[in-house]
Amino acid sequence: MSPNTFFSGLSRRTLLSALAMLPALPGALLPVSASAQTATPGSPLPSWNDSAAKQAIQNFVAAVTREGSSEFVPPAERIATFDNDGTLWVEHPVYTQLAFVLDRVKKVAPLHPEWKNTQPFKAALEGDMKTLAEAGDHGLLELVMATHAGMTAEEFQKIVMDWLATARHPRFERPYTELAYRPMIELLAYLRANGFKTFIVSGGGIEFMRPWTERVYGVPPEQVVGSSIKTKFQMRDGRPELFRLPEVNFIDDNVGKPVGINEYIGRRPIAAFGNSDGDLQMLQWTTMSGGARLGLIVHHTDAEREYAYDRNTSFGRLDKALDAAAVNKWVVVDMKNDWKRIFAFE
Amino acid sequence: MSPNTFFSGLSRRTLLSALAMLPALPGALLPVSASAQTATPGSPLPSWNDSAAKQAIQNFVAAVTREGSSEFVPPAERIATFDNDGTLWVEHPVYTQLAFVLDRVKKVAPLHPEWKNTQPFKAALEGDMKTLAEAGDHGLLELVMATHAGMTAEEFQKIVMDWLATARHPRFERPYTELAYRPMIELLAYLRANGFKTFIVSGGGIEFMRPWTERVYGVPPEQVVGSSIKTKFQMRDGRPELFRLPEVNFIDDNVGKPVGINEYIGRRPIAAFGNSDGDLQMLQWTTMSGGARLGLIVHHTDAEREYAYDRNTSFGRLDKALDAAAVNKWVVVDMKNDWKRIFAFE
Repeated sequence: MSPNTFFSGLSRRTLLSALAMLPALPGALLPVSASAQTATPGSPLPSWNDSAAKQAIQNFVAAVTREGSSEFVPPAERIATFDNDGTLWVEHPVYTQLAFVLDRVKKVAPLHPEWKNTQPFKAALEGDMKTLAEAGDHGLLELVMATHAGMTAEEFQKIVMDWLATARHPRFERPYTELAYRPMIELLAYLRANGFKTFIVSGGGIEFMRPWTERVYGVPPEQVVGSSIKTKFQMRDGRPELFRLPEVNFIDDNVGKPVGINEYIGRRPIAAFGNSDGDLQMLQWTTMSGGARLGLIVHHTDAEREYAYDRNTSFGRLDKALDAAAVNKWVVVDMKNDWKRIFAFE
Repeated sequence: MSPNTFFSGLSRRTLLSALAMLPALPGALLPVSASAQTATPGSPLPSWNDSAAKQAIQNFVAAVTREGSSEFVPPAERIATFDNDGTLWVEHPVYTQLAFVLDRVKKVAPLHPEWKNTQPFKAALEGDMKTLAEAGDHGLLELVMATHAGMTAEEFQKIVMDWLATARHPRFERPYTELAYRPMIELLAYLRANGFKTFIVSGGGIEFMRPWTERVYGVPPEQVVGSSIKTKFQMRDGRPELFRLPEVNFIDDNVGKPVGINEYIGRRPIAAFGNSDGDLQMLQWTTMSGGARLGLIVHHTDAEREYAYDRNTSFGRLDKALDAAAVNKWVVVDMKNDWKRIFAFE
């Protein structure tokens, strides 16, 4: 799923549910291990079982790369767009960026003594999830702005990287960047090896993702589209800087995804990958344009190795998009049965 | 120079001057000739004289590509950004996009009989430049919105391409896309041959440029940054579309250029190319960051082969950026003396 406006689109119920599941974040330092970066040479997609999903992907790639075929697509037009949270890496028990926000509030609290008596900061500091949930989207947006704005773009990048170097996922007890799905990393590499240009199109913060997507997914910063706050150019002490303002710039989720694709990429994709209703419009925009197209939805069906959720969860909901998948012949990946291996560390 | 918000930032004086210079646009159809697309193989930059400007460019490229050198920059970080109007192609006597706007108003006028009695449309239709100038930025923005919004993104792309196929520059009597500067096309190709990724960062409309930049400059749509209006995703008759709204989304000029670079590219360039004060902040942002950096300004000094203008023109003004060039050691290209050939058709 894609976080709505840095989570501002989350319903109260969603937020409550997400926060309730958030354990105390471990503060212990742990070095970041090398993440799975490249596909194994040899046969493509080794972490995929030989099921219908894998076959559909390979059939699509064969069709659009076969010169002379009526379905051939020139390399320049082979654009593939991937949602991030829940599609390329784990989004449970809460979006990684939300864990970052809550950690960050605690970290900078000493500079803001007034937070002890001001909501929603007081609730965030005290772990009072009920009050935090009652503060709703507006309260959450306040937390986001307090942690994402008020510094330069370069400073924010360092804050993100410092956090990722030490933060650990509560269940897997590993750096978040190790929780990228190995089959999807292979898929990214497989598409690139076949002339595709791969983009991330996520509801998450664009500057939260860019510092590490190249290392983890092989996707460079200029191929990352996401939600953003406004920045301002200014000269300070004779040097230029971009200062981050507490104002929403763009929301790259739901109907915003095709808009973001058009604005940032300027081409219509021929393949799109998501896992929730937040990706519905991106998959519609991609696949409903004639020609050979690939729409794919990652269905979280493996509570043992990862998580299992779809229509009836208040978090990462996959409902309308699952219905649309049947109508539009999108590939629905059954994580439990289609993926031989989920993480590189398995 | 970079058009301000589709020209909305132009002062009245600037607008008046620009419009006064605008001859009746020729309506005759003329096929688009192939534009200069690739540099001549062999020695790089053949259209450049062997002067200091060419040497400075080559020294910079040698420094950042020499492995082991303290100034070496990995290929992934070799980002170069180019202004468009006046830097890559002719911007006189008016921005090409403004010529498009005025042509387009005439073209669709039959669908808007009320324009005959409504300003600023009446003035645009009658060629009443004085009244049009008096309508100021607001009036011009009205013309832009009337011609750039109210259709899908795909429809607008076709409108742009159809116009470019027949419109001719009033002085050179050639399609506008033939008025790209041959030395700059060679420079783009030379940088790419040395591992650079080349981007356009223009004040002009992003969707006005994207349909043709790959053919003319070798710059694909996803590497074009520009000003934009908002679009909206919607399903119509069961098919998804992006509809263009009469609302400004982003202004990619002056202080907006570093903001646009950060938002769309997400990396700080190591080389930037402009020709006016609209490019000042982009050159500051690019060059004032330590390490080997290249800032370059195209100085229009050749009234015979092209145009001559800088500080004292009301159009395409190069004033503050020329002073900054001396302070910051940016290369100032003297078109008359540094360029052996300006256009491919010479």
